[in-house]
Amino acid sequence: MGPDIKVLLQKISRLPGLGPRSARRIVLHLLKHRDELFEPLLLSFTNVFNSIKVCPCCRNLDTLVDCCSICTDKSRSRDIICVIENVADLWAIERTSCFRGQYHVLNGLLSSIEGRGPESLFLDQLLERCRKNEVKEIIIALSATVEGQMTDHYIRNFLVDKRIKISSLAHGIPMGGELDYLDEGTLFTAFSARS
Amino acid sequence: MGPDIKVLLQKISRLPGLGPRSARRIVLHLLKHRDELFEPLLLSFTNVFNSIKVCPCCRNLDTLVDCCSICTDKSRSRDIICVIENVADLWAIERTSCFRGQYHVLNGLLSSIEGRGPESLFLDQLLERCRKNEVKEIIIALSATVEGQMTDHYIRNFLVDKRIKISSLAHGIPMGGELDYLDEGTLFTAFSARS
Repeated sequence: MGPDIKVLLQKISRLPGLGPRSARRIVLHLLKHRDELFEPLLLSFTNVFNSIKVCPCCRNLDTLVDCCSICTDKSRSRDIICVIENVADLWAIERTSCFRGQYHVLNGLLSSIEGRGPESLFLDQLLERCRKNEVKEIIIALSATVEGQMTDHYIRNFLVDKRIKISSLAHGIPMGGELDYLDEGTLFTAFSARS
Repeated sequence: MGPDIKVLLQKISRLPGLGPRSARRIVLHLLKHRDELFEPLLLSFTNVFNSIKVCPCCRNLDTLVDCCSICTDKSRSRDIICVIENVADLWAIERTSCFRGQYHVLNGLLSSIEGRGPESLFLDQLLERCRKNEVKEIIIALSATVEGQMTDHYIRNFLVDKRIKISSLAHGIPMGGELDYLDEGTLFTAFSARS
């Protein structure tokens, strides 16, 4: 095969979840269906690549002109903001359709190892938005890891006395979870937070 | 997320071996690393898309100017041709480095269901190449399926009396294969072809 194909194979095989074998399958599939599949995919890639930006309002990654599709959606309420770690979490919450407010994307948690301090959370920007839109509640939806909980704690401290209700996601037994397979930490939390 | 990203996700999730979840992972990974990963990948895709063609000589799919990288490789012998079903098989044989001749890619087997008749095999073109390059041997390397063996048989019949040695790949026990896990067909062939 030509050097161009080799480079493409190498690049695809390094994408998350893929390897040399799946890269070969994908490239062969595209080569065989040049006009029906390869061309539309390439066009789609180009479109997204050219229009992807960080939303200046909520720091979501989206194909945007001014603000992202969530910030500009008039049907969503502006007085509730959900703080999340990254865009993957935003997409996950959007799939549940349970939340119709705005987001604040941290794009990373506090981490001394990675050298991410409080300034990387853009909390001043969040506070300004809260004041401008008269936000009533901030939901902190971070992972139940050490770094997630540390960041949760930091944001709570930062927002204290700002007359905004602050809530965090509930911890407990996941749906379909069987008691004897749960780890002690989850079981302990589920007991403590019983209602 | 914006409509462009949705279209891209849909297209990626339809690639072989991928689904909605892996498409999301890949797209998020690319969005997060726009300059280091997304741009080089897009460039690579564009390069391959613009230069991919069917080799007029062996019908291989490659990024080519005149003929494919195998046909133009001067270090490969021209008097032996391996007949294969598709480009995936060509790549597989090239990975073993056991063959240094030329190929003839059928791009599909004889199949009455798919309406692929003998004209789709481009055997006249193969014969012309054999005459021009004084080919001594043709190796038929097709799958051990009904259609593969039918096509093998047809090509053998077509090439009979042309003063070219014709061989097919050996059938038998695969490397690492344990006797009691083999199917009867393979075991039978291995017994018949014992040496």
